[in-house]
Amino acid sequence: MLPGIGVFGTGPVVKVLIPILRENGFKIEAIWSRTLQDAQEAAKSLNIPFFTNVIDDVLLKKDVDLIFVLCSPNLHAQISVKALGIGKHVVCDKPAGLYQSDALKMVRAGQYYPSLISLINHSFRFLPAFIQLKKKLEENYLGSPITLIDIKVQTGSLFTDIDTFDWKCNAEMGGGTLNLIGSHIVDLITFLTGEKAIRVHGVVRTFTKHTETIKGIRQITAPDFCVFQMELHNGVLVTVNLNSHAIGSTFQQEILVCSSTGHLVVRGGDLFGRKEKTTEEVIYLDVEDLKCPVPNSMLPKTFIKGLCKMVAALREAFLPVNDQAGWIKEPVSTAANFEDGLYVQAVLSAIKHSSQTKQWVKVSIMTEQPDKNELLSAVVRRTAISMS
Amino acid sequence: MLPGIGVFGTGPVVKVLIPILRENGFKIEAIWSRTLQDAQEAAKSLNIPFFTNVIDDVLLKKDVDLIFVLCSPNLHAQISVKALGIGKHVVCDKPAGLYQSDALKMVRAGQYYPSLISLINHSFRFLPAFIQLKKKLEENYLGSPITLIDIKVQTGSLFTDIDTFDWKCNAEMGGGTLNLIGSHIVDLITFLTGEKAIRVHGVVRTFTKHTETIKGIRQITAPDFCVFQMELHNGVLVTVNLNSHAIGSTFQQEILVCSSTGHLVVRGGDLFGRKEKTTEEVIYLDVEDLKCPVPNSMLPKTFIKGLCKMVAALREAFLPVNDQAGWIKEPVSTAANFEDGLYVQAVLSAIKHSSQTKQWVKVSIMTEQPDKNELLSAVVRRTAISMS
Repeated sequence: MLPGIGVFGTGPVVKVLIPILRENGFKIEAIWSRTLQDAQEAAKSLNIPFFTNVIDDVLLKKDVDLIFVLCSPNLHAQISVKALGIGKHVVCDKPAGLYQSDALKMVRAGQYYPSLISLINHSFRFLPAFIQLKKKLEENYLGSPITLIDIKVQTGSLFTDIDTFDWKCNAEMGGGTLNLIGSHIVDLITFLTGEKAIRVHGVVRTFTKHTETIKGIRQITAPDFCVFQMELHNGVLVTVNLNSHAIGSTFQQEILVCSSTGHLVVRGGDLFGRKEKTTEEVIYLDVEDLKCPVPNSMLPKTFIKGLCKMVAALREAFLPVNDQAGWIKEPVSTAANFEDGLYVQAVLSAIKHSSQTKQWVKVSIMTEQPDKNELLSAVVRRTAISMS
Repeated sequence: MLPGIGVFGTGPVVKVLIPILRENGFKIEAIWSRTLQDAQEAAKSLNIPFFTNVIDDVLLKKDVDLIFVLCSPNLHAQISVKALGIGKHVVCDKPAGLYQSDALKMVRAGQYYPSLISLINHSFRFLPAFIQLKKKLEENYLGSPITLIDIKVQTGSLFTDIDTFDWKCNAEMGGGTLNLIGSHIVDLITFLTGEKAIRVHGVVRTFTKHTETIKGIRQITAPDFCVFQMELHNGVLVTVNLNSHAIGSTFQQEILVCSSTGHLVVRGGDLFGRKEKTTEEVIYLDVEDLKCPVPNSMLPKTFIKGLCKMVAALREAFLPVNDQAGWIKEPVSTAANFEDGLYVQAVLSAIKHSSQTKQWVKVSIMTEQPDKNELLSAVVRRTAISMS
């Protein structure tokens, strides 16, 4: 039995997700936005029976059993924790909140309600090319240990909607390339290799601060470019280049996994590989058409496809169980959970810290909420840095 | 009147250069290699009348007036300085020696003999796509200041000859991706923008230490991968990714110059650009065939083409002057001189230092030879670091 769905947010991901959910048999019962007008417009264009700007009105709705949290990251923890407390399943967009303290709250709530689904929307884990890549790594296709993972993502078109000033332009609300793309990459590395970063170095920049429509007192604070390097626990070097600054360029992604005797590389949604002394071979070509009627979106196809597959997995998790709140684990066992979300936050915050201090920074995962005095002095320190 | 040429080295660049020189009317009078056998074989296959393994035998040859120093970098300074002292023109391969102290010796010699040509073989400066890019930047095609220069070079095929153990495998002799490719990139940035790096961060790695034929006690010490970031004097960020580790991949280079309102990008030998609100346009397509009969080489076409153009410029510099040692400056005025070589060395050594210390490192250009005691303590320090 499929749960009824409540959606938080009205951005491009929501517009893509809702047709996919419906194609998979889910019913969308309610939509929330920060303003009532925006919620109403979205409800009308997406044909959703209930809209509101009051969080509880969605969470307390009887026919809503699964919440998709797709609004700005500063609200992720608040909504997710409350939803779980009320007994609703949660799929939360990446990253898990703004700070590690947000993610830690989500982890605790998830642990407290293990009978509820609590996932992070890292849809790359469901993209066939990455599943194939993981399989090839496990089969030791490379013939020798991984030495280097080299990643480049160019998202010239991801922010073409930048003329509208919203949370994606705002660093304090969780916008920007590092949060939106970087989080996927950090998670993907662990998904593929089972390894975590112990140390990172990064340069995070906001090059374009104004556009024709965002000017005057309004300014873009969210980063549009970052490079970072991670050292994994097993010594592997990961180098990442995320460029959303070259507006107007086409979307490109290349994930290259090297050993001393070969390499595997995902370009777009396709997987190629090369073993010792051979030429590069095609391992997986993503020719399968998207089955869902997805609106013309500026989101990259690989993101959308991952989303389709993840929703299909959710259907498989819920459908066989007749109880309204029941589900089986297996179809979503490879999805990112809130613990994965906390780790990603730890890495993102280390990268930001590195960019400020021009140092390599150790990744340390928060295990306890900092007490308020510590928090205050951290804010004072941060303010001092940003004023210096 | 074209000068007779003496060549030091017998590597792939030499095999490509000699036909180009001949096509431009130059006569090759002598070739040197570290072993007599190698020199003899090269002389035979390249049809050169004189071969030797004694440096002075080339330098003192009467019919040799222009020296190409294309052997391992640890010999660059010694040969270049001596050649200038004897009154011969010098074109030296990049980088200018192994250390800044080498490059500084070369700078001093070049300054002492201004009537002689003394150039570094940074042939990218002669590649039409980069000349066009420089022109577009000067014409303010981008509409606003440069914010970011993002460079990726993949040279999977540059080192397929890695089965032969030679200086290119050896860090102490000047081999590796940072020296061989990185030097070109560092020079190119200054050529294009007129700006120099003030601070750098880098990760330099040797992933593949053994191959099927290089094993046992022999080991590759020269880096096959590096990423680095440079802050230019005017605040522009430069990010560079040089990957020679994914052996068997095809050669690719992309040099992307961004502003907030547009970008210019060289892919391979072609130039594309995008101004505000338009789509990317083709600015220059390199369809011109190489006129010279170049042997089938693993060197990238863009390198070879730059070399062709540089040799043609040398011809233009020498041909109009009847005196055997005479030349005019204009045709080679944009080439890299020894001062440029010293700057590149300063940046390369700062990148290596950064990779060892995991810190951002200030670029400081050497102006005086360090005294021997200082040098000794530096060696002791370096040994201590590498043993720790």
